[in-house]
Amino acid sequence: MAAKFISMRNLKFLIYEVFDVLALTKHDYYAQHNRKMFDMVLDAAMKLSAKLLYPVFEEMDRNPPEFVAGEVKVHPSVRELMKQYGEGGWIASTFPEAFDGEQLPLLVANCCNMMFSAANYSGSAYPGLTAGAARLITNFGNPELIDTYVANMLSGQWQGTMALTEPQAGSSLSDIATTAEPSGEGYYNIKGQKIFISAGDHDGVDNVIHLMLAKIPGGPPGVKGISLFVVPKYRFEGQGTPVFNDIVVSQIYHKMGYRGCPITELAIGEKDDCRGYLVGEAHKGLFYMFQMMNEERVGVGLSAASIASAAYYAALAYAQERPQGRPILSKDPLSQQVAIVEHADVKRMLLFQRSVVEGSFSLLLQCSRYEDMLKLTKGEERETIELLLDLLTPVAKTYSSEMGILSTSQSIQCFGGYGYCEDFPVEQHFRDMRIHSIHEGTTGIQGMDLLGRKVIMKDGKALKLFGQTVRAAISAAREHEALKPYAALLDKSLKSLESITLHLVGVAAEKGAAVFLADATLYLELFSYLAIGWQWLLQAISVQKAMQSRLSKSESNFYQGKWFTFRYFFEYELPKAEGVIQRLKSEDALTVDMDPDFFND
Amino acid sequence: MAAKFISMRNLKFLIYEVFDVLALTKHDYYAQHNRKMFDMVLDAAMKLSAKLLYPVFEEMDRNPPEFVAGEVKVHPSVRELMKQYGEGGWIASTFPEAFDGEQLPLLVANCCNMMFSAANYSGSAYPGLTAGAARLITNFGNPELIDTYVANMLSGQWQGTMALTEPQAGSSLSDIATTAEPSGEGYYNIKGQKIFISAGDHDGVDNVIHLMLAKIPGGPPGVKGISLFVVPKYRFEGQGTPVFNDIVVSQIYHKMGYRGCPITELAIGEKDDCRGYLVGEAHKGLFYMFQMMNEERVGVGLSAASIASAAYYAALAYAQERPQGRPILSKDPLSQQVAIVEHADVKRMLLFQRSVVEGSFSLLLQCSRYEDMLKLTKGEERETIELLLDLLTPVAKTYSSEMGILSTSQSIQCFGGYGYCEDFPVEQHFRDMRIHSIHEGTTGIQGMDLLGRKVIMKDGKALKLFGQTVRAAISAAREHEALKPYAALLDKSLKSLESITLHLVGVAAEKGAAVFLADATLYLELFSYLAIGWQWLLQAISVQKAMQSRLSKSESNFYQGKWFTFRYFFEYELPKAEGVIQRLKSEDALTVDMDPDFFND
Repeated sequence: MAAKFISMRNLKFLIYEVFDVLALTKHDYYAQHNRKMFDMVLDAAMKLSAKLLYPVFEEMDRNPPEFVAGEVKVHPSVRELMKQYGEGGWIASTFPEAFDGEQLPLLVANCCNMMFSAANYSGSAYPGLTAGAARLITNFGNPELIDTYVANMLSGQWQGTMALTEPQAGSSLSDIATTAEPSGEGYYNIKGQKIFISAGDHDGVDNVIHLMLAKIPGGPPGVKGISLFVVPKYRFEGQGTPVFNDIVVSQIYHKMGYRGCPITELAIGEKDDCRGYLVGEAHKGLFYMFQMMNEERVGVGLSAASIASAAYYAALAYAQERPQGRPILSKDPLSQQVAIVEHADVKRMLLFQRSVVEGSFSLLLQCSRYEDMLKLTKGEERETIELLLDLLTPVAKTYSSEMGILSTSQSIQCFGGYGYCEDFPVEQHFRDMRIHSIHEGTTGIQGMDLLGRKVIMKDGKALKLFGQTVRAAISAAREHEALKPYAALLDKSLKSLESITLHLVGVAAEKGAAVFLADATLYLELFSYLAIGWQWLLQAISVQKAMQSRLSKSESNFYQGKWFTFRYFFEYELPKAEGVIQRLKSEDALTVDMDPDFFND
Repeated sequence: MAAKFISMRNLKFLIYEVFDVLALTKHDYYAQHNRKMFDMVLDAAMKLSAKLLYPVFEEMDRNPPEFVAGEVKVHPSVRELMKQYGEGGWIASTFPEAFDGEQLPLLVANCCNMMFSAANYSGSAYPGLTAGAARLITNFGNPELIDTYVANMLSGQWQGTMALTEPQAGSSLSDIATTAEPSGEGYYNIKGQKIFISAGDHDGVDNVIHLMLAKIPGGPPGVKGISLFVVPKYRFEGQGTPVFNDIVVSQIYHKMGYRGCPITELAIGEKDDCRGYLVGEAHKGLFYMFQMMNEERVGVGLSAASIASAAYYAALAYAQERPQGRPILSKDPLSQQVAIVEHADVKRMLLFQRSVVEGSFSLLLQCSRYEDMLKLTKGEERETIELLLDLLTPVAKTYSSEMGILSTSQSIQCFGGYGYCEDFPVEQHFRDMRIHSIHEGTTGIQGMDLLGRKVIMKDGKALKLFGQTVRAAISAAREHEALKPYAALLDKSLKSLESITLHLVGVAAEKGAAVFLADATLYLELFSYLAIGWQWLLQAISVQKAMQSRLSKSESNFYQGKWFTFRYFFEYELPKAEGVIQRLKSEDALTVDMDPDFFND
């Protein structure tokens, strides 16, 4: 049997009690769903995770992909996994019925994705990437592209990828150099190099469909000249005969973690025989990509928080069974040792992990709910939701990824020396975790995105809306006596965030953009404490409501656990905002002023 | 040629300009040394690191020890390494001349150890452990033990180990169960099991000498019944014939990092034929061990900070050569990209790493200087130094180990995706780092040691002395106009620490030890900010003095770099104390109050 890697009870708490997913089913688009069906979906996802993904979690790490004679060989379970995902409708679950999808709310689908990633992050990446790539085609591609590619992707027979990064253009997409020459025959000749392409080729599928950024010669410079193409490994000519499309894997990367999934370097069109098919209009590639970016980045945060969840439950199980030491007040060396979960410092470490996991999940599902609402709303209501989602996405991605590193590190700490050994899963979780603050935009990029774009766009409208939203939660919390002190703390933090933002806008006017953005990463950190605090307050409101009823022992334990984790966040995590605020108020722009030569000695 | 892994300039700055190592040479014990000799020693250590250790840094990780037919096979370079260490006098360097040592001040010897660990942590562990074990024998063993064992250990022919941990007694040494039955013939029959024994057996040496804790039956329970033994792999009978001493390796651990050194599980006396030789008096084993503990723990911190150093210089080199993006104010996509070291956020990440590395090194060398002074002082002066060393050791160990995790993580971040790949060394540094907050006493144990023992012992005398010492630095800093604001900040922090300590002592009286110690780890964190801030202020004083002279370009860069890193610490790191203070003032003892059942759901 699989060990516990995620809490179903918590996921149901979040979607039913905090985010009221059933309210969505009152709208036509989601009307075919109900609680019974959601529960069935969640149970099926848990089974799939436990039976298909979890058992090969370690094996896929210990036997990473091999690059043999130009072919990428992955663990044999990958083919089975893609097949079962396809057949079970998991890749298509959120797609419209027109594509044989289930129109499942992301709120539910992402709970399933959390289970998948918690059970085996590498394994979950293959179908996840495929769904993302297919969605780009259904959203922006013409009917022919849709007809040719989407069905086989959603069925798991073909792998989808996102092919953006190039050697000279990591975080700087404006510098990509892959070219797409129009052939005059409906396709483009693609030529270039892509690096760090997840699942960029492997023998677990029959074809690989790259959603690739390239530049059509003669277009505008920089990001305005980027177009999006479907570039398959095998293209189809005449009667549908598959033809190798001149995309060669030049190497696979040997990585610290995330080892179950091949990350590839691709040489494209070296023999001038690679054809790409334009998605949407020319030069709008980055625009299309950015349409998907929120979902992708939430997806990264989701994977990170899920890994942290698996590591937390491993640490908890160990802490509950490992006897070591005695209570502080009973130093009789002949008395029996107690389980380490009894020690306050171990409880603190566990509460930290739980606060990261459940705080992240909450914010990620908040974003998922906004995403779902975009399908149901119009006009100003839709704009509000879109702005909030834009604002919160870098926060949800980064908090989960950065705190996930610390959380899995604390999971190791709970094990002591055993946590450092391969006999337990936490060292792998720690390694698997470390990619998330890098891929889909590094933490530095997210900070710039938040402060340099999201906060200031439309005269700060997104931030104003966020303030209103948090204040609504604060007001709701004040209805509960027990929550008043925490509501006051969050209110104070919100005011600090607003005043720091004003201060920074003043800095921008006075000292320019470089100084304004120098500490964007810290601003993002500050924002995270507030956003996660808001989510914990929302959860605490639901806890207070639930605790008004008579509860079974296990239900009571669950809500009490929530309640202590909520308090933990406000007692131990939220105060960290103080240090960041102090720095953000400072006048010393030392990271701008410092001459890089001063690093030499 | 080896890439840069440590700054010789910085080490010399610390020992000559900050800690005035030459002052030690005015005392008889160190009188044979002078600056020229120290420089030669440092140069020789750098050469050894670059030529012997650095070249096999990656290889030792990729080809970890193997356990074949009961034998532990290590990388072939280990034998050569031990030989050269022994022949070069490196293992014996700090030993008294009576043992053919050099009587080198730890202040200098630890700079050498920093180079060794930065070049190849696993490689440096073998001689380091041997020196520690040999020192236990020379300090507490009888002449026969010294004659039999020490010379071959210091020559690198025999490995030394510290054999403390047992399966049921990780952090709780009072629970060790290994027994030592007196034979009546001058030796004890040892029986038991030890786990996590670094370099506990391997084929790079001819014998392994365990300094082992065991209990003599009939002794007092708990820690007061623990004795220390020399337990060799091969003992010597009659005319010195080596006889296998019934210590069997039952397994080696497969670890995330630190993979170049075998960590073993030992079955001792399974055939009732293992002899141990008592060191010093019976039942005083833990007392002897604790005599060495400061040095061992400083050694762990030193390894951690050294790994962080190597990762920092790798990240710096990459940042200086990797073009990516453009200055904030020049968004022309056709302009040339700049090296990422030009970006403020990258400079911030590098300054963070440098602040951790150089702040840690400074505090560790401060401890080394105190250790050196113990040899030269008596009476009250000696007691003062001993108290300060006792107080600062858990801080130096933990700050280096915990911040080292974050620092190597930021090294990876500077590389982006490449940092996650095995092509660059930083992912290994990140893995090698993670053990240090666990071994030689976890961070939780260090927190309890600091707050529950060191701070309150002798009516808080150590803390008072520390306050005086820091205030002396603050006064000295106030002599320099540029340092006044920073001196004021540190003064404020010191007062906060003192008032928090008083508050906690009040909590102890009112609510008992469990609540008092619940947040000992956070108290340790708070203490660290202050201790490291003090070290940065001491460094800044030396910088101010140096900058009064006319400096060459490279010297000027060095001092400017120090100056910016100092400012970085006070601007970005010291403010983090605020959040910790806020928590430590709180009345909510939630980690004590929480029922462990609340973790279930």
